[in-house]
This record gives sequence, C-alpha cells and structure tokens, in this order.
Amino acid sequence: MERSQLIKGLEQILEPGRIISDPVDLMYYSFDSSFLARLNKFMPDVVVTPRSTEEVSAVMRFAYENSIPVTPRGAGTGETCGSVPVQGGIVMDLSTWDTIEEIDAANMQVIVRPGVIHGRLNEKLAAMGMFFPPDPGSTRMCTIGGMVANNASGLRAVKYGCTEQYVLGLEVVLPNGEVIVTGGLHSRAVKSVSGMNITKLFVGSEGILGVITRVRLRIWPKPKGRGIVMAVYKSLDDAPASVLEVYQSGILPSGIEVLDQSAIKAVNLYKPEINLPDAEAILLFEVDGNPDSVEWEGNKICEVARQRAISVEWATDAKRMASLWEGRSVVATAAARVRPDGTRVFAGEDISVPLSKVAEVLRAIRALGDKHGVRVVNYGHIGDGNVHTAPVIDPDIPQEVEMANALVDDIHRYAVTVGGTTTGEHGVGAVRAKYAELEHGAAVGVMRMIKQAFDPKGIMNPGKLVPKEEA
Amino acid sequence: MERSQLIKGLEQILEPGRIISDPVDLMYYSFDSSFLARLNKFMPDVVVTPRSTEEVSAVMRFAYENSIPVTPRGAGTGETCGSVPVQGGIVMDLSTWDTIEEIDAANMQVIVRPGVIHGRLNEKLAAMGMFFPPDPGSTRMCTIGGMVANNASGLRAVKYGCTEQYVLGLEVVLPNGEVIVTGGLHSRAVKSVSGMNITKLFVGSEGILGVITRVRLRIWPKPKGRGIVMAVYKSLDDAPASVLEVYQSGILPSGIEVLDQSAIKAVNLYKPEINLPDAEAILLFEVDGNPDSVEWEGNKICEVARQRAISVEWATDAKRMASLWEGRSVVATAAARVRPDGTRVFAGEDISVPLSKVAEVLRAIRALGDKHGVRVVNYGHIGDGNVHTAPVIDPDIPQEVEMANALVDDIHRYAVTVGGTTTGEHGVGAVRAKYAELEHGAAVGVMRMIKQAFDPKGIMNPGKLVPKEEA
Repeated sequence: MERSQLIKGLEQILEPGRIISDPVDLMYYSFDSSFLARLNKFMPDVVVTPRSTEEVSAVMRFAYENSIPVTPRGAGTGETCGSVPVQGGIVMDLSTWDTIEEIDAANMQVIVRPGVIHGRLNEKLAAMGMFFPPDPGSTRMCTIGGMVANNASGLRAVKYGCTEQYVLGLEVVLPNGEVIVTGGLHSRAVKSVSGMNITKLFVGSEGILGVITRVRLRIWPKPKGRGIVMAVYKSLDDAPASVLEVYQSGILPSGIEVLDQSAIKAVNLYKPEINLPDAEAILLFEVDGNPDSVEWEGNKICEVARQRAISVEWATDAKRMASLWEGRSVVATAAARVRPDGTRVFAGEDISVPLSKVAEVLRAIRALGDKHGVRVVNYGHIGDGNVHTAPVIDPDIPQEVEMANALVDDIHRYAVTVGGTTTGEHGVGAVRAKYAELEHGAAVGVMRMIKQAFDPKGIMNPGKLVPKEEA
Repeated sequence: MERSQLIKGLEQILEPGRIISDPVDLMYYSFDSSFLARLNKFMPDVVVTPRSTEEVSAVMRFAYENSIPVTPRGAGTGETCGSVPVQGGIVMDLSTWDTIEEIDAANMQVIVRPGVIHGRLNEKLAAMGMFFPPDPGSTRMCTIGGMVANNASGLRAVKYGCTEQYVLGLEVVLPNGEVIVTGGLHSRAVKSVSGMNITKLFVGSEGILGVITRVRLRIWPKPKGRGIVMAVYKSLDDAPASVLEVYQSGILPSGIEVLDQSAIKAVNLYKPEINLPDAEAILLFEVDGNPDSVEWEGNKICEVARQRAISVEWATDAKRMASLWEGRSVVATAAARVRPDGTRVFAGEDISVPLSKVAEVLRAIRALGDKHGVRVVNYGHIGDGNVHTAPVIDPDIPQEVEMANALVDDIHRYAVTVGGTTTGEHGVGAVRAKYAELEHGAAVGVMRMIKQAFDPKGIMNPGKLVPKEEA
C-alpha cells in the first residue's frame, strides 16, 4: 500500500490528532537504545497514538486487511529494537495512553492502560503503603505495557521475580483486531487456575502476538525497612561464593549487585571522590522487610560475607545507603570513561549465567574483549547471574563497529555454551532472534507454530523474538 | 482400534512390565477425588508406566498415528477428573518415574522427573537449607509433574505464589511424539526472557498440550523461623477487614487461613477437645522468615488484629503452633461431621473471590446451601480469597446428588458474577470446562486455537480445561 493511502485509511478510523506523519517526528520512532538502532535507521511509514481499545482494534483490523506491519511501542527505552519498526509500516505509540484506571487497594491490585509509567504508578502506590515490586533501571520512563511485553525485571528480581509474576490479567487486541480479556472477563481474583495460562504467554511476547491495551497487576504491601551491605573482595571467585553462602544462610536479599574490576575502575575514573577500593569485585546486598528483619539480615550477611571479603560495611540510614550504592548508580554512565571519547554501546549486554559460573564468565568476557580489541565494563544482578557487559568503542569507526559486533556475537554464544541465556531481562527483539535455535532447539518450532496461529499474515512486530524459518 | 490391538501395539514399543491391562488394576485409574468420578467410572482401555522420554515419545507417536486418547496421570490426587480418562484410551501413569536427577544447590535449582513426590523433594531440600515453596495439602502424595500440569499452590501462595513461579524449564513430549525443551536446551540460568514464554503456557495446561517429562525448578533459601497468630472474630465481616489491615501494615504473611462458623462447628463436633470458640470466623496467620522478623511480624499482626478480634493468640514454639493450627488441620476431615453419616463431596470447592467480598461470599454460599437443602462447610486460603466449600450429602441418594450438583453449579456461576474465579488452585479438568466461556469470553477462542495447533487430532487429555466448540 502506498504511504499516502495508508495515512488516508488511518485518518478514516482514528480521532483527529492521532496520526504522526511528518518525517522529522517519525525519526523519533526509528530507534531505541540498542546498538542495532544506532547502526540503522528503521523509519516507520506512519505513527498512530490510539487512546482506546476501539481505536487499537480499528487500526489492527485495517492493518490486517492490508497486510501492513504494526509495531507497538511504549517509551522506547528498550535495548533490542523490540519497539522499532525494522520492516517499516505503522508504529503504534501507546505511551500517551497513561490512565491509571483503578487502584483497587482492597483487592491488592491495579488496573492500568499500557502507557502508565512505572515510577509514577509506584509513587501513587507508595502513598497507600503498597508497591508493584519489579524495578527496571528505566523506572522513570518505562511504561507498564512495555514492561509486560518485555517481562521486565531489574535489581529486585532476586526476591520479587519478574513482571510476569504480578500480571493477573490483560486486555489484548489480536492481530486481526479481535479483543480478548485474559485472566477472567471481570475478575478481581488474585489467584486462579481457570483456563489455559495465556496471560503468561503474552507476558514477554514482545508485541508479536497482539497489542496489550489494559493490564491488571497484583500489588504487594511495601516493606517498611531497607538496608545495604557493601562487601569488597580481593579475589573475584569469592564474590559468587559469598552470594551462595548468603542464600544458604536462609536469606533471600531483595537484590545482589556486582561491580567487577573493570566497573570499579570506570566508576573511579568518572567520579574519583567515590573512591571505590581497588579490588577484583564489590558486592552490594540489599535487604528489605520489617525493621527488625532488615537488622537481622544485614548483620547476618555481614557475618557471612566477612569470611571472604576484605571489608564489609552495612547501613540502614538513607544517606549512608545512597553513598554505598553510589558506585552502582553511576556505573552505566561511568562505563564509557574507560576510554577517552569512548561510547558505551548496548549490545551483548544482558546474558544471565549459572551462579556457579559467574566468576569464570566475567573472566571469559574480559578475555573475549581482549581478543577482539574491545574494552568492556562488567556489572550486573549477580544474584540472578545476570551480567551487564558494556562494550566501549568509537561507533563512528567502521572497524570498531565490526569488532564490537564480533565480540557480542561471541558473548551471546558463550553464554549459551556455559548453560546461560542470551538475555536475562532486556529481551530478544531484533538483535537476539538469531540465537533462538542455538538456545531453544526444537522449541522454536513450537514458538513459530503459536506465532503462525495468532498472526498468519505476520504483521505483528515482524522480525522480533522468534526468527522466521530459514528457507 | 480394538483394545487387544492397542495392547499389542504398546507391547511392541515399551519395555516389559510397563503395561497394565487387568480390569481390576485399571479400576484404580478410573477416578480421582472428584464428585464427578464418584458418580461415573471412567475406565481406561490400558495403562502404561513409561520411565524414559523415549518411551513417552514412542507411546505418543503410536497414539497420534492411531488417534487414541492419552491421559497423563501423576498420583491422581486431583479433584477435577484432570487425570481421569473420561474418553477412555491410554492412561499414562508417570508416578513411578520418580527420579530426582539433580539438586543443583549452587545454582538454586533442581531437575526432577514428573513422578517425584512433593514432600519427598522438600525433605531432601530441607537438609540443605533450601525449599520449593508451593505447598499443596496433598504434599505427601502429589507429584511434581501433577503440580506443574495443575499450577498447584496451597497455603503459602499468599507470599510464595503458585508453582508457575518456580518452573524454569520443562521437557515436554508433544502430542505427535516430538520432544522439546523449554527455558533453554541446556540452561541453568535462573532468569531469562529469551524466546516466547511457552514454559508458562505448559504450566497449568492440565496435560492437554503434551506430556511433561522433566522439570527444572527454582528453589529458595528456607526461612529459619515461623510463627502462627490465631484471631477470633465475633462478626464475619471483621475477618477480611483484618486481612486487609495486616497487608496495609506492610506485612505479607506466608499464609492466611479462615474457618467460618460452619467449619468451627464441624471441628468441634469432630474433636471436641480442640474446643474452638463459638464465633463467626477464626483467622490463622502464618509468618515466616528470620527469627527477629517472625517476632516483629507476629506482634504487629496481633496489634492489628486486636482492633477487631475478640481474642488473639500468638506462638512460635512448635507445640503451641500445632495446637493453634489443629482446627485447620482437621477441618477437611471434620466437614462430614455436620451431618450424621454425611459424606463430603469435592465439587464447587475451589472458588477464589475478591478479598473485599469474602464475607459476602461466605454468607451467600450458606444461603445457596439452604436454598438447595445442602449442608456446607467453608474454610480456605482467605489471603487469596480462595474459599473451599465442602458440601456434605449422602451420595447414594440420587435426589441429594442432584441437589448438590445444582448447588455447586450455582456456586461456580456466583463466583464469576462477583468478580471471582471458578477455581483458585484445584483446576478445571472435566468438571469446570463448561464455565470457560462464562469466565473468559472470547479468550476461549484463543485457548482453542492453541489447543488445535498443538493437538489437531484432539488426543491429549480430551475433555479437560478447554471445552470443545459447541456445534
């Protein structure tokens, strides 16, 4: 379909002001944070900003009839091109549809539209003593719809798991425009095993099965206390060993973060006054709960960590906690400092590996960096074995781009080899679909079968999550 | 296919001793705990007891080629005919395949075959300071395979959620005999968003999409402390109000149980020495965690509950906890005592309703019982709004059977009307499939579409979970 026809068709089914077609504006929808989007500009033909289920359904029916690709998008904070229109067509921007429909505190749940921002929801909930536990780093920008599509998590997944665990039900517009409600048409139950578990199939489906237009989320009592333990290790191997010993002592911290030597250096270069000790690894344990519990667990973690760490410190007051945490807070920004005028690129940044292999993996990534001549900085959610690697390069030099791409390809394959996954939390999108067969084998056939059943024309966010069968 | 041919065919693909065909033995596979199975005998044509993925795959290929129904079965502890061959054919008994393949404590996970018994696994884990949190009442009998197929939970779902939350990956034999691995072919990662979330689609699929032959489960540090609060309420309405106030105080107990007046009476009739107070409701809160946390939370719950309760008691020593808990322990058995020579039947026993409506629902169920002339006893996991209703009848009197069936039909429909679900944890099986459309509307079409894609011949556990389209 001609672009002008496409726009005309959409004008007939949408409220005025819901269509963006100026090429300058479209530019903003051509990328996310991924390296892939930096290297390519994936321009949409048109962007729509629907604000009702009916509008989303009308757009999908139109797109389905005319076989036009549709890419749903939240805040575009992703790192995998998941919300980027790699095959053009329509981008459906849901970020303006940010209604919190109901905070049903008496039933421990909320009903939101997809564009609600995570941080904003949690601010409202905090005032009522409640929270929605997953906590992506992008909390101030990312949308609940995006979190569901991506099955987002973050720091506190160790204790609180991923988004899927809190999704009680969804309203979804299918590729052909049909609207369904999962988890019960009018349900406010917090537990149910009625019907096939399709709610969870949509969680993490990256928009390839339909458009999420409403989310019913479980909320939890917000713990009143919080504490941070910082432990410094001379030897890298002691860090994951300490993590396991903490688990074995009966404690499930809310988060366990690691900075390896490369990250420590980056932080000290970026902000020398933080002055992290020269060590092979720093661990940060966060515990939460009631005040007595936090005190008990903080002390216990110190006791356990001291068996291996060269220094251990522990705080529950806000200022000291922020100070202990500061290295972790700045590391993503600091990473680029390991090289003058270097840029950190988002690629190969999200493997998750068996806890027992974290030290070996961190060393191997450093060795791979050396092999490819690329500086890397490692940090991450060690409690889940989730390693965020930051390659630092000059992306304007084609040879460096090539080196970085070769490095991250090695990192992804290596992760699978050691019993890990190519992505712990950032998702597959367009950048990791090619590893599906390596990681999942014959199960990819089942994924393709489901995709085909939902979307026989292949219009929903094509090129993401599940690779097409090779001819 | 003739039964003799069927047996001959199976003999050719299975190890000797893997086929059960004596009618007396087959009887044991014709029922579970459900009222439906009490009213009908659903005899299999033959039972197989495979003990390898290859054997399961060979049986499925054979069944698929010959269009023979296959019903996978664990310990048969279900209450919905989920593992009962309502259309005859082959029952695949997986209970003898009870190998714990690996306890990978360093990576906080276990790999088991489907027949491993829940309680046995948790005994082994306890010795290492770990546990698999879901805790169905049938722990001493039920199998992990059955728990996964049913997405089982129990008392501690309030804090620890359902089985799905712990399933990292599965090996599944598809209806056509193909074997896939979900969650990563060789993965030992504890967090991943790689690929479509098909692991969770299989969890709770009640055997209609394939046979689960291996389970990779997340395990957690086992909390060292535990405490019980018992609170007695003069007015039923105060009980759910107390539950909400406990949540709002920032506490997530590991379990919150309710006994209503009918349950209190039943317990006192059954074992007068328990001597529960004459009240409209008793709540039992269980808290777990480190010892200081348990102490803090127990005291806080007492403080909150005292605002409404006529008496509150709190214990952390094993003997006193068991004594406080005794009423709850015996209630399922005690229920029948509300009527001399009465029998408790498992039907309509598992609705889960919005927390805000629990008091109203308990009253309505009593009224429905009166309307139909059936005695009912109510107890359940009030923290999740999960109400277990025990109808007590004489099942040998056809008129009473009719009355009970009419009552439970009303209970199921009523649950959906008040924003609840027909089943919080026991599953759909053959007894609740007919409510799918009422509860899920158009989403049932998607469930059918998925079923059709996996099992075009409709041989996998037919008649369960998703109803056939009405002609």
